[in-house]
Amino acid sequence: MERFAFALLNKDSGTSARRGRMLTPRGAIETPIFMPVGTQGTVKGLLPEALKDIGAQIILANTYHLFLRPGHETVRRLGGLHAFMNWELPILTDSGGFQVFSLGELRRITEEGVVFQSHLDGSRHLLSPELSIEVQQALGADIIMAFDECIPYPATRDYVAQSTQRSTRWALRCKQAFRGEAGQALFGIVQGGMFPELRRQSSEELQEIGFDGYAVGGLSVGEEASLMYEAMESTLPLLPEDRPRYVMGVGTPENLVEGISRGVDMFDCVMPTRNARNGVLFTSFGKISIKQARYAEDSQPIDPACGCYVCRHYSRAYLRHLYQSGEILASVLNTHHNLHYYLNLMAEARRAIENGQFTEFRRDFYHRRETQDS
Amino acid sequence: MERFAFALLNKDSGTSARRGRMLTPRGAIETPIFMPVGTQGTVKGLLPEALKDIGAQIILANTYHLFLRPGHETVRRLGGLHAFMNWELPILTDSGGFQVFSLGELRRITEEGVVFQSHLDGSRHLLSPELSIEVQQALGADIIMAFDECIPYPATRDYVAQSTQRSTRWALRCKQAFRGEAGQALFGIVQGGMFPELRRQSSEELQEIGFDGYAVGGLSVGEEASLMYEAMESTLPLLPEDRPRYVMGVGTPENLVEGISRGVDMFDCVMPTRNARNGVLFTSFGKISIKQARYAEDSQPIDPACGCYVCRHYSRAYLRHLYQSGEILASVLNTHHNLHYYLNLMAEARRAIENGQFTEFRRDFYHRRETQDS
Repeated sequence: MERFAFALLNKDSGTSARRGRMLTPRGAIETPIFMPVGTQGTVKGLLPEALKDIGAQIILANTYHLFLRPGHETVRRLGGLHAFMNWELPILTDSGGFQVFSLGELRRITEEGVVFQSHLDGSRHLLSPELSIEVQQALGADIIMAFDECIPYPATRDYVAQSTQRSTRWALRCKQAFRGEAGQALFGIVQGGMFPELRRQSSEELQEIGFDGYAVGGLSVGEEASLMYEAMESTLPLLPEDRPRYVMGVGTPENLVEGISRGVDMFDCVMPTRNARNGVLFTSFGKISIKQARYAEDSQPIDPACGCYVCRHYSRAYLRHLYQSGEILASVLNTHHNLHYYLNLMAEARRAIENGQFTEFRRDFYHRRETQDS
Repeated sequence: MERFAFALLNKDSGTSARRGRMLTPRGAIETPIFMPVGTQGTVKGLLPEALKDIGAQIILANTYHLFLRPGHETVRRLGGLHAFMNWELPILTDSGGFQVFSLGELRRITEEGVVFQSHLDGSRHLLSPELSIEVQQALGADIIMAFDECIPYPATRDYVAQSTQRSTRWALRCKQAFRGEAGQALFGIVQGGMFPELRRQSSEELQEIGFDGYAVGGLSVGEEASLMYEAMESTLPLLPEDRPRYVMGVGTPENLVEGISRGVDMFDCVMPTRNARNGVLFTSFGKISIKQARYAEDSQPIDPACGCYVCRHYSRAYLRHLYQSGEILASVLNTHHNLHYYLNLMAEARRAIENGQFTEFRRDFYHRRETQDS
């Protein structure tokens, strides 16, 4: 069984951008990479073939949702999540922590784990570090995340310190519970809120435990972009250069470009898929809302500079019609385009880093947004 | 411009089943054929590529819906419905009559046409035979249907006689309004309810006007299957052998097999697509409801005898999970399978007629339903 590995291929001279390659039992992943979110065992609206067609190398699935329905033991008996959903490339699972902590009134934190009530049927469960790892292993994820608390923003220093300490103790329990029998990787998650010294402490203690990769958690939780970038800047240099760095739940195309320039290798976010279902489309010149009346007879593709299947075959007028009519195909086509936009942006960033032109790429990215009009 | 034509290729010796070929400006259509319904300019949930992959040769679009949204002039300005929806194979449009008459309180019939209120915004419109043809020509349909009243069931003989007479007068006006500049075909629709002599009168008068094909309307409106088959038996022999015969809005797989054996060449129905979205799937052994708990850990495909994309890649357990989770992909995959089932049934029927084995095909069709269990 080939073990997970990461190779750093290129470093940009003008920024902290890096070009790397992860090796997993299910194939290589070129970084920086964006991971489409497939919450319930499907990236909403897209067939696996379409996902591959637009260059998805790895997708993310949600432990919380699959634990509750259809249940990880069911998925295990059916051959694991890859077979279940017909996706043979790598899968990263989150730990379930983010969703559980989002339940608000429906959950209670103890040292043992989090007691929560299902949003589906109100049933009570305890999600512990050990169970989170067990579920992720049953699903057959290639990259498994440690169970942590995603700290809300704002939060007091006291709360952040205590929560981060507990997440570190949980991370150790995750490491002990993790078997990695199928060559999987286990990633730790740095917390510490917006407090640089707590981020430092968290990252040091996690490195003592030792993980295959390191995530920065607790970002994109309502803070301003400048604060998010500060947290990246204070945390990423503390992480080992020879391990992949993953900023969770981020973000806009701008966040991605800024993240890459600060040394991030991996991203995930529901933004391209959720926005697609709401008729908001990403283009090289910024976002557009396809429901606007101005597109009713617009025969242009979403983005004339885009080469995706949707832009090659469909007009803004047709996409507006589908959206206005509540047609399933609106979600299908919009999701296809938005994920292509995100994945293509990553592919262009990788090429730019390889060619030593990341600074030009980044300048160009902003220039097109400022000067072009739909 | 090649003109619409129909060639009768084979006749079954044991039944009235026929194997034919329609030639349209957008290619040949092998009959008997089922036409998937694409009400609002999309077959709900399926990409055009998937439709072609499962053997769709022609689809149906609804004049009423496209007239109201996005509007036929908009579609015309955008290059016609084929370009608008990225479907280059033939399209048949209905006349709008069926939907307008289904509006109940919201419509009033006059000799001129039908005054109705839009189900979208309550706006008032008059749909006349001339406007129906104009809209269908603006959409660029390859087969255009005459505007008629789809008579409800049950109805008195008096009402059926008067309505059928009016539909005949409207059919003449349709013929006069029809230009067929792009080689399109115009089909007349036989009415007459469940009264054989009114059906006979309608079919004779329509043939005097002269159409490229003949439909049997007013079936599948709540009558028993035996009555539907009687109406087919009394009407189809009255129609010219050298023109295609289309039974509108029919039906179940059983209805299709029985229709073919009585000489029907063309069918359309929302059943495979609508049922798919409700989790009801067609198989060689009958219908199944994928939401049933018995499928929760069933690793089999929907139908082990089916070779479609869905049955090759997904288990009943996964499809049940998608349905229970309200995922878009449930509709996409279920629709793909159901339409493949319908289209493959037609392909098998065509082969059976060619090989002089239609009676065996029909016996086999029922045998599998009676003896096999899911």
